[in-house]
Amino acid sequence: MAKYPAKVYLNGEILTAEDAKISVFDRGFLFGDGVYEVMTQTGGSFFYQHLHFQRLAQSLAKISIDFDVDILPAKIENLLDAADLVNQDCLLYIQITRGIAPRQHAFPTDAEPSLMMYALPRVLPDINENQLSVIVRPDYRWSRCDIKMISLLGNVMANDEAIISDAYEALLVRDGYFTEASHCNVFFVKNGAVYTHPANEHVLNGITRQLTIKLCHDLGVDVKEEAVPLTDLATVDEIFLTGTTTLVASVKYADQQQLYPDQEIGPITRRIQQGFRDLRLQHRAKKATITTNLVTN
Amino acid sequence: MAKYPAKVYLNGEILTAEDAKISVFDRGFLFGDGVYEVMTQTGGSFFYQHLHFQRLAQSLAKISIDFDVDILPAKIENLLDAADLVNQDCLLYIQITRGIAPRQHAFPTDAEPSLMMYALPRVLPDINENQLSVIVRPDYRWSRCDIKMISLLGNVMANDEAIISDAYEALLVRDGYFTEASHCNVFFVKNGAVYTHPANEHVLNGITRQLTIKLCHDLGVDVKEEAVPLTDLATVDEIFLTGTTTLVASVKYADQQQLYPDQEIGPITRRIQQGFRDLRLQHRAKKATITTNLVTN
Repeated sequence: MAKYPAKVYLNGEILTAEDAKISVFDRGFLFGDGVYEVMTQTGGSFFYQHLHFQRLAQSLAKISIDFDVDILPAKIENLLDAADLVNQDCLLYIQITRGIAPRQHAFPTDAEPSLMMYALPRVLPDINENQLSVIVRPDYRWSRCDIKMISLLGNVMANDEAIISDAYEALLVRDGYFTEASHCNVFFVKNGAVYTHPANEHVLNGITRQLTIKLCHDLGVDVKEEAVPLTDLATVDEIFLTGTTTLVASVKYADQQQLYPDQEIGPITRRIQQGFRDLRLQHRAKKATITTNLVTN
Repeated sequence: MAKYPAKVYLNGEILTAEDAKISVFDRGFLFGDGVYEVMTQTGGSFFYQHLHFQRLAQSLAKISIDFDVDILPAKIENLLDAADLVNQDCLLYIQITRGIAPRQHAFPTDAEPSLMMYALPRVLPDINENQLSVIVRPDYRWSRCDIKMISLLGNVMANDEAIISDAYEALLVRDGYFTEASHCNVFFVKNGAVYTHPANEHVLNGITRQLTIKLCHDLGVDVKEEAVPLTDLATVDEIFLTGTTTLVASVKYADQQQLYPDQEIGPITRRIQQGFRDLRLQHRAKKATITTNLVTN
């Protein structure tokens, strides 16, 4: 079960979860007008933090919120300190909204962006050994999924459908092609090659997605940023999901169809899981091997 | 300039705007996971209140929020009383979110929906005499625009583009056809007939839209629920917007192209404006002439 954090950072104050309250006129509450990031700390520092900050800055720019992400590290340090999570494995949630103003659609000219953050203890496994079930649903979401925004009703509805179907995720299909899942990216393996939707306006360019593509190159696994049609579902060899807390996770059942024999994980999924585990081990040993600035859209 | 209301109803309490604060864990703030309505009071009662309540109940049902709209009238009465707006012309905003829970996409099983409402004095003109400018933009929104939800980032971005272009609204185009505007429905007049997008999952079935269609029938004006292609923009005879506070409003400039001679409003737009004025006068005289239950999707 999800839990509330011990401490919440809200616009300069450190509060208990119970006391962390925002004006009902915050545009996050009235319009879903904001963006967010989730990062995980392991070995005393955040895994590929610079990529998360870079994407957050891009999301803010895309929706014209003027907020300098360079002020975040000092505030995160204060929060971790107050929450007794300095150097602890944890998950950090950061949300920035356009701020508080009387309700009208157009952007207010004088609102200060609101910043809300919290951290929760979270030790991730070296490898996500879960063998997941997914359902397949139409992708009803908007056409700017490249923005990591909080107007997430389409995502939460799709995810809820998965959960009530005893599945972990919903794979979303737009115009006959798989885009991503409700809070993960999705990869398919066909004839030894790995496929995922290109990082355009129909998917979020996940940090784990980017690291996975780079990892495939490093491992000599053929990887193509090409969308996979729904009609290939019955014949793909492997499916896996990627995400900040999902890591690289094998999909065993897609719409109840079993992909691998019992106890097994697809061989290419396994290689990528091991490669990703090594990336996290290198991070903990302060020896990151993928250093490129990957976020570009 | 938009103003804050004197009083806000929030989960059973009447508060000042400044004191009206909601948990940052409300799913309205984290996910835009909620729905809303706007109604206007004139002559001591809300104009077609039953249609607004009917649509609110449908929006709630579509996103599986269990909330009984029949409890609203008594609470609205309390709010109007506290705000000194009983029998006064005013605008009422109602927002219902899925409630407060630790952040995870799937719907919490034990959250109580949050109810927030406020009223603002607002005397609407008999006829909206403004001659509006609109811009034309791609419709990036999701495919369930029939739900009046608060995940409105796509809408507020489009509206902001209009405002910074000195326009009132953005007409949205999906797959080559006009759908609606960022917070209004749109109608076109071609060769004496009135056209508007059918009430499917790509538009909100506005109450004023529904009344306008019924009014056309009553006035003997040919009206078709057919989408108008973008390519017709240069040749349409008239364009008007409809909305709860916009009423029926003439569009004079679409993407800077002038539609009518100076000082004039298109003749069919004018007839509908006059018919809509009469509907509001009848409402004030407690003699509503359109009594059908119009909301169906």
